[in-house]
Amino acid sequence: MSEATAAHRVVIIGGGFGGLSCATDLRKFQGRITLIDRRNFHLFQPLLYQVATGALSPANIASPLRSILKYQTNAKIIMSEVSGFDVTAKEVLFRDGYRLPFDTLVVSGGSTHHYFGKDALWEPFAPGLKSLEDATEIRRRVLSAFERAERDPDIANRKKHLSFVVVGGGPTGVEMAGAIAELARQTLRRDFRTIDPADARVILVENSDRVLQTFAETLSKRAGESLSQIGVELWLNCRVTDIAADRVVIDRAGIHESVPTECVVWAAGVKANPLAKMLAEAVGGVEIDKAGRLAVNADCTVGTRADIFALGDMALMKDADGKQLPGVAPVAVQQGQYVAGLLLRRQKGQSAPGPFRYWDKGSMATIGRSRAVLEAGKIKMSGFIAWLAWLFIHILYLARFENRVLVLFQWSWNYATRNRTARLITGERANR
Amino acid sequence: MSEATAAHRVVIIGGGFGGLSCATDLRKFQGRITLIDRRNFHLFQPLLYQVATGALSPANIASPLRSILKYQTNAKIIMSEVSGFDVTAKEVLFRDGYRLPFDTLVVSGGSTHHYFGKDALWEPFAPGLKSLEDATEIRRRVLSAFERAERDPDIANRKKHLSFVVVGGGPTGVEMAGAIAELARQTLRRDFRTIDPADARVILVENSDRVLQTFAETLSKRAGESLSQIGVELWLNCRVTDIAADRVVIDRAGIHESVPTECVVWAAGVKANPLAKMLAEAVGGVEIDKAGRLAVNADCTVGTRADIFALGDMALMKDADGKQLPGVAPVAVQQGQYVAGLLLRRQKGQSAPGPFRYWDKGSMATIGRSRAVLEAGKIKMSGFIAWLAWLFIHILYLARFENRVLVLFQWSWNYATRNRTARLITGERANR
Repeated sequence: MSEATAAHRVVIIGGGFGGLSCATDLRKFQGRITLIDRRNFHLFQPLLYQVATGALSPANIASPLRSILKYQTNAKIIMSEVSGFDVTAKEVLFRDGYRLPFDTLVVSGGSTHHYFGKDALWEPFAPGLKSLEDATEIRRRVLSAFERAERDPDIANRKKHLSFVVVGGGPTGVEMAGAIAELARQTLRRDFRTIDPADARVILVENSDRVLQTFAETLSKRAGESLSQIGVELWLNCRVTDIAADRVVIDRAGIHESVPTECVVWAAGVKANPLAKMLAEAVGGVEIDKAGRLAVNADCTVGTRADIFALGDMALMKDADGKQLPGVAPVAVQQGQYVAGLLLRRQKGQSAPGPFRYWDKGSMATIGRSRAVLEAGKIKMSGFIAWLAWLFIHILYLARFENRVLVLFQWSWNYATRNRTARLITGERANR
Repeated sequence: MSEATAAHRVVIIGGGFGGLSCATDLRKFQGRITLIDRRNFHLFQPLLYQVATGALSPANIASPLRSILKYQTNAKIIMSEVSGFDVTAKEVLFRDGYRLPFDTLVVSGGSTHHYFGKDALWEPFAPGLKSLEDATEIRRRVLSAFERAERDPDIANRKKHLSFVVVGGGPTGVEMAGAIAELARQTLRRDFRTIDPADARVILVENSDRVLQTFAETLSKRAGESLSQIGVELWLNCRVTDIAADRVVIDRAGIHESVPTECVVWAAGVKANPLAKMLAEAVGGVEIDKAGRLAVNADCTVGTRADIFALGDMALMKDADGKQLPGVAPVAVQQGQYVAGLLLRRQKGQSAPGPFRYWDKGSMATIGRSRAVLEAGKIKMSGFIAWLAWLFIHILYLARFENRVLVLFQWSWNYATRNRTARLITGERANR
């Protein structure tokens, strides 16, 4: 094949919400699409906290990328780790030295935890919730805490084992704290003989004056009330100042309170994938914000390059009002679709589309059994109906049909029996 | 409570088939039952190979012990590791220094892999299939091999990546080899663009002249034919002499053949849990066989002690014909039930039961989709009907109702679509 007629090569980095929606929307693209990811599956992150609390299995919220793109013959998948970019030669560089040429590059690497400069110190004691390994590790820690308490004759120690601290009052923190409280008060209620799991203390630490800051104030208040009702202590206007193996220190209005605990979950800060910085430097003259995101143009292109795009959690984009778009799945999905549409139009020689516009369909968070808050435009809802809507939408967005059935069955079962079917303590340190 | 009226304390070690059936059959026992296990779940080991090949999720074949014994108020569970026995003081010793007194002791610690004296050398390259961690590690290795082959430009390397060696032609080895062959030829058929997964080579190494040695010869022959049909190479009368990171050396009629491979699964030898030796030495005068099992009396008691029992894979017992009972789940279950019955009779002052008799209900093994062999008394079956029987019996014996539904649904789905829904590459080295 001569150079002139060679197929156009689109390289997409990241099989998350952004990269995958771009790849699947390019199914009619005349060319060769290569999707690169370190993992062999697409992860439905919004339900990770349910794996971390034993309600679902990892495979229920993960779909093999190769399964999804099985019949899309213009797409190839490479499971590998990208180490950099040569934008002059138009090549992606891999850790193992391999170089992959591209005509168009789409980077959607997502985000990771951020401990405000204390990463190395705090991470071992306060895992975040971004990967399946994070989720099974948190599950191990939460469940092991009850086991240790059951066999520890010392009352003070038992109290420490049964203290759980969740840092960060966004949707992940709220859902996680609610799920731990339910696990203790409902699922495990009759499981122990020495301890009463309901004695467990679940503290949610938030440094502003309300949980779910991105929601309307009335909904934050409702969510806070729901959390209190199921036994979560809300520590608002509080800041974590230290985390160690057996305690967390929290600044409460200037007083540093040390809470003995062995189980801290980090849901406070995220930073962009390091690929954002690499790409910004490779292209040159591109701004990086404090969270490590790279500024993109209104059509998701990077700097002066019409052939390089960035999107999702690692991209910094402002809407028409100058407000930053949030790092949530719908933004990434819509940006992925937008870029795919742009490339299809470009291939057909049609005019470029207008700037990307985020259609905010609303946001929701669930607080344990039968409770949720939902906000969509002017609609504000809380309680059972909001919870049903939450269920429905999450089932709908799960990638694979069989996962929908599996999740629906387990949710129904867990709802009816107050059980959680995937309460396994696994991992290399499971025998500790 | 005075010593005379104090509740009788039964301590059961091991939440596998033997220990758990003993514990649940003691639900009407007047006393205190303590079940000790390192893990928080009962594992349905016969289906582990399905986790290792991505057909089922770990939680589908594991049931939390606390869930199972939730309503049995005379039973308590301790998740901890036993380090020894003081049979004079009648105490179980734990790793953390804790000592637990018993009136009656039942030890059912199961078995682990055995590499014929090469444990340290071979284990890292040839994991066995005993725990959930083993299964997810094998799943990682099998799936990663295809990923490496897809991105490796070197033809010889690709061949190495796509070579799988299963050592041992018993039921586990046969089922594992069949499942890998099916994964390559059916599930992954359309998943890759550079390689053809059907090029994968699956070698089953067996040192005798037939697979499934414990079955009738006609069934071994059928199983062998089925394996060949789905693309498994049968290397009979062969012995593994060395295993390394990138090859396995096999003695074929005196010729040492080196097979380049990075994925070896060990299904050859098992040895008893080290607790068998500890218990034998603590009691004194008890025989230990080459596989590390301790000889027990006809009523499962150990040595001269009427208050100490051992059962399951770690116990050596002969039937009326002097034949050793096999290390399979039904033996352990029936022994557990037998010991529970004995203890209940003893408590009521009834006469001791006769010696334990194993009721062999038959055995079965499945070879990929729609094929199995089944032997029960004079009944010998193979093919589709045997496979349906295999499905039915395995669903029936799964411990929890919701697992039955989840497994049944996934099996139906996988059967209809030739898909495997849990094909995740996870674990700490997943990014390698």
